[in-house]
Amino acid sequence: MKQVLLVCTVLIFTCFVSSCGEIINKNNKMEAVVKKNEKVLRHIVIFKFKEEASEAEVQKISDNFNVLPNYISVIQDYEWGLNDSPEDLHQDFTHCYMLTFNSEEERDSIYTPHPKHQAFVASLQPHLEKVFVVDYWTK
Amino acid sequence: MKQVLLVCTVLIFTCFVSSCGEIINKNNKMEAVVKKNEKVLRHIVIFKFKEEASEAEVQKISDNFNVLPNYISVIQDYEWGLNDSPEDLHQDFTHCYMLTFNSEEERDSIYTPHPKHQAFVASLQPHLEKVFVVDYWTK
Repeated sequence: MKQVLLVCTVLIFTCFVSSCGEIINKNNKMEAVVKKNEKVLRHIVIFKFKEEASEAEVQKISDNFNVLPNYISVIQDYEWGLNDSPEDLHQDFTHCYMLTFNSEEERDSIYTPHPKHQAFVASLQPHLEKVFVVDYWTK
Repeated sequence: MKQVLLVCTVLIFTCFVSSCGEIINKNNKMEAVVKKNEKVLRHIVIFKFKEEASEAEVQKISDNFNVLPNYISVIQDYEWGLNDSPEDLHQDFTHCYMLTFNSEEERDSIYTPHPKHQAFVASLQPHLEKVFVVDYWTK
């Protein structure tokens, strides 16, 4: 009888732990869905470098942009790539970057004046022919 | 003794089901990580409408763009928003759209010539002052 009681206790405990796991898992899934549906602020930055900018200089600038998310935590997401559009609607722009923020305040008050961002902008200027920037809130 | 055997069987079965759940959950998580790291092709489209385009006309065009993902399954992701950049580097463009594809082939051979896309482009032309398009592969 003692054995039965012990086994029953273990069984109930196992069921309890299993249920807890299910509940935690469901909560995580709900959180993921909420995050996916949250609005975010996209910051699209597109460069065309001067003809005389060397490949090494352009690479260095791109590398310096790529490391900004390591220093500026309000950058929620960062991606970049070279223009690949077959349509002739790109005004000869070549380097495309997309940064994601959670608010205009984080963009304007933390990212823009951040010393690392300001140093990057200063290093960029001599080699840049033109820049295009649009931002939008996802819907 | 029979009771103990029955309870043990139930216990082992419960543990087995619980372990299966864990394995499936882990596999789903791994798949999510792989998807996150997969390269995708971004297609950025930015409009400025003519001054004479009415608010209703612009709204209708935007609505027509927004429903394209319902008809063209190769659009993996779609988002849009109104330009919100405080920097004067947007050339007066206002409407920003980002479509995501898995390949250039799906973009060029399925999306671009798709009748729904072609009808949208035709409806757009009379009201559009200018358009800017860049595409890039995420890295």
